Amino acid sequence: METESLWKRYNRYLIKCPGLSMTLDISRMPFGARYFSQMQEPIDRAFDAMDKLEAGGVANPDENRMVGHYWLRDPERAPTAELRHEIESTVADIVEFARKVHKKEILPPKARRFTDLLVIGIGGSSLGPQLVADALGQKNDKLHVHFLDNTDPDGVHRTLEALGNRLKSTLVLVISKSGGTPETHNGMMLAKHAFAQRELDFSKQAVAITGKGSKLAKTAAAEGWLRDFPMWDWVGGRTSVMSAVGLAPMALQGVNIQQFLDGAARMDKLTRKHDPRKNPAAALALMWYFATEGVGKKDMVILPYKDRLLLMSRYLQQLVMESLGKTLDLDGNEVNQGIAVYGNKGSTDQHAYVQQLRDGVKNFYATFIVVLQDTPNPAKTTPDNYARVSVDDAGDSAGDFLSGFWQGTRQALYEKDRHSLTITMEKLDPKHLGALIALYERAVGFYASLVNINAYHQPGVEAGKKAAASVLAIQKKAVDALAADPDAVVDAEELAAQMREEDIETVHHILEHLAANKRCVQRIRSKYQYLPA
Amino acid sequence: METESLWKRYNRYLIKCPGLSMTLDISRMPFGARYFSQMQEPIDRAFDAMDKLEAGGVANPDENRMVGHYWLRDPERAPTAELRHEIESTVADIVEFARKVHKKEILPPKARRFTDLLVIGIGGSSLGPQLVADALGQKNDKLHVHFLDNTDPDGVHRTLEALGNRLKSTLVLVISKSGGTPETHNGMMLAKHAFAQRELDFSKQAVAITGKGSKLAKTAAAEGWLRDFPMWDWVGGRTSVMSAVGLAPMALQGVNIQQFLDGAARMDKLTRKHDPRKNPAAALALMWYFATEGVGKKDMVILPYKDRLLLMSRYLQQLVMESLGKTLDLDGNEVNQGIAVYGNKGSTDQHAYVQQLRDGVKNFYATFIVVLQDTPNPAKTTPDNYARVSVDDAGDSAGDFLSGFWQGTRQALYEKDRHSLTITMEKLDPKHLGALIALYERAVGFYASLVNINAYHQPGVEAGKKAAASVLAIQKKAVDALAADPDAVVDAEELAAQMREEDIETVHHILEHLAANKRCVQRIRSKYQYLPA
Repeated sequence: METESLWKRYNRYLIKCPGLSMTLDISRMPFGARYFSQMQEPIDRAFDAMDKLEAGGVANPDENRMVGHYWLRDPERAPTAELRHEIESTVADIVEFARKVHKKEILPPKARRFTDLLVIGIGGSSLGPQLVADALGQKNDKLHVHFLDNTDPDGVHRTLEALGNRLKSTLVLVISKSGGTPETHNGMMLAKHAFAQRELDFSKQAVAITGKGSKLAKTAAAEGWLRDFPMWDWVGGRTSVMSAVGLAPMALQGVNIQQFLDGAARMDKLTRKHDPRKNPAAALALMWYFATEGVGKKDMVILPYKDRLLLMSRYLQQLVMESLGKTLDLDGNEVNQGIAVYGNKGSTDQHAYVQQLRDGVKNFYATFIVVLQDTPNPAKTTPDNYARVSVDDAGDSAGDFLSGFWQGTRQALYEKDRHSLTITMEKLDPKHLGALIALYERAVGFYASLVNINAYHQPGVEAGKKAAASVLAIQKKAVDALAADPDAVVDAEELAAQMREEDIETVHHILEHLAANKRCVQRIRSKYQYLPA
Repeated sequence: METESLWKRYNRYLIKCPGLSMTLDISRMPFGARYFSQMQEPIDRAFDAMDKLEAGGVANPDENRMVGHYWLRDPERAPTAELRHEIESTVADIVEFARKVHKKEILPPKARRFTDLLVIGIGGSSLGPQLVADALGQKNDKLHVHFLDNTDPDGVHRTLEALGNRLKSTLVLVISKSGGTPETHNGMMLAKHAFAQRELDFSKQAVAITGKGSKLAKTAAAEGWLRDFPMWDWVGGRTSVMSAVGLAPMALQGVNIQQFLDGAARMDKLTRKHDPRKNPAAALALMWYFATEGVGKKDMVILPYKDRLLLMSRYLQQLVMESLGKTLDLDGNEVNQGIAVYGNKGSTDQHAYVQQLRDGVKNFYATFIVVLQDTPNPAKTTPDNYARVSVDDAGDSAGDFLSGFWQGTRQALYEKDRHSLTITMEKLDPKHLGALIALYERAVGFYASLVNINAYHQPGVEAGKKAAASVLAIQKKAVDALAADPDAVVDAEELAAQMREEDIETVHHILEHLAANKRCVQRIRSKYQYLPA
């Protein structure tokens, strides 16, 4: 297509977002002139399903739950006065708690103020807070945020070692809806261990964010933690960034959470329109459907031209893949749905895998995310405004290059029939980040309707957890068996026979792991023996 | 398959790496008993091509270059005594330079020693150093490493602001083979600006790593930089981590580079065997071929169960996708090859997208990377050895859970006919990281032979760069046109007409970007006017 007709197409299909400085450009997706009318009926069904969901219908039938993340930024939409009150009072409580921490009205026992924040959580209880902390963090944040998001002892050690002596001024948020997530539990146990080693009182520096009556809630109550904030069963982990899960870390860091919520509320308002040409989330979902033929045929490559949005692809991996990656559709047919998501940031990724995007296997469509303002305060004329420094004789700034690389890469892909979407934001602030997240939340919901799946459960996650628990049970049996005969030197097959465990390979991997860590088991050539503590 | 026959399959196909504590387990790929014999002829051709490459043949015909990254860890294999000497003396120079920096024999003008290292580079000149710094970094590193890997002024500001007053004790490495990479040039210009603002002499703290006679080499010579190290045209960016590009940052950080090289050399030795059942790189390439049917049908999901290997997937995105993502094969046929790579780390990703891996679209195969030792020093009995802390009543450690989650997830995927490979390493140290990288480098080379493409060029990258340069040229014309008539208020179409530029959309995006940054252009409703500096 010539540049002139592309310009017409750009203007014809550009989706604006009144009240937000954002646009969605779908001109580089080669849908035909009749595509939107062809998709009228399916997208109308998606609009209806979404309306019912927002009104408090059971949108997650498998778990018999309402899906309420949209109420979090517009509590008046909550189906009962009680829910509305809970949402509003939680936001107020968070703001008040953060204020008291910042004003030193809430203090750690052995320091003059809280300096750092340690967020212990995983998946939906970590990716949102990580995205926000990185996207909006400043050097002068009220608290500096750190994360434990795994059960890797070395990773935990690294984070706690970096905190070092500041552990005494670190506020700890433990985030788990069920309170039973093992990685989070383990992170908490190791943090408690570190506190105890330094003779610090964990409970005086800890806050729980969890479901009512959960194991974690009970622990927090029994140990007298600083306080707790609620998680509700009508908010899924991957859409919890606008509940206490995301808001508490943000507020403590010093970010304006009301602006974040307002941006999302504004986007929600736009994405309730029953007209995909004016509804950016519906348009996005329709473009995904067009690109993937509704069966996940192409990967979604996320390329923000902004360092601060590096984690957007990881956030969207969870939001999109956990929501859409489903075996069965709502009628019980096997469909094996989903869209794979990956990406990091431009222009950096141009020097990594854009070679394949342009020349290689055509199994993707790109989404460029462009932020027009090169710095939060472009007009600032102080020398540390790097957006105003010329980097060449022509007077170009580094940001001019960043912008040029986005355009250049988009064009290079387009020339070779590789397709892309572009989301442009005037600035990256709490409001627009909230809007961006809300845009994707609703696009995922619409897309799920288009392909007739439940976007709000995650049945596939349980199997791995159960299998892991059975590995740990086998480990216990194996160690007990070795300890019962401490002189015996056996291989995995012999030990498994002794344990009457038919899964020899699991026994083998357990022995390898324990021996490598010199715990309970030692290796003697290719066999194993009990190792007393 | 039953656990018993799986155990047999595990043992039958396990590929060991004598001299390294590493294994490759291919038992969870459902190839048939005759697969290896069926692939004998193609893999033999790959072995021959690799032998010729290592002997100094022109393995990158499009650029008429030798491909010599294997010589870097075994200089005796270099085809000439001169090359051998260059490799050896560069390693010795790096070790000596790092020693002098650590011993304060080389000092910054205004501080008592160098405390930090700022690496300015992008793509192959950054991903390797980033991977190594994160995988092997310790709190007591000799220098703390930071990166500028983009042309985002806000990102640059953030890194330089974090360095703050330590800029006076920061050693800067500028890495660019051609010396003309704009992102790297811009990062350098902004770093120079920051030095100048603090009245520091950039040249007295700067080191260049670049090709002989490059633009950067000339700048470094003219300004009298501290020193330079060479990049050679026979080392591609994505395989440069064992040249000065990777070795200089590692040595300065305090990592033993000889062990890193030795691990790679050892792996190279194993992967030269003309027997895929004993050659882990050949086996890996054959598994990729099996999974993707040699046409990139499935994505490669990289799941290291180790926080420190989080960046492995980004490293492999470049190595694999830039090497394999090619339009034409060696005979000039259009093939659109490649394998998409993504992933972060386990068990964290289980709470993000493993739902889709298990239940959703079957367009991937997983590679688990397992490190048996949970900490660098497992026997250490001090309280900060978190690998020895029990996290539950059964006495399990956090690392037992990590190991259990790997096994559980592998099994959960296998049950649903999702396939995986597992690379197991006893420990994560310089030697085994070197070996892991060498394993993938050669697997990529073999796979390229199997699908008959040139793995060593990147013709698709130029188009985006050229298009970006033309955007910047249009920007200059647009600003000049506006400045020529400072009272005019025009929209993109009017300005483009005035400039006789037919690409109106590019003019539009340029105006939007400049106006958002209040540079040269101001927006007046939907039109634009010149904005004097």
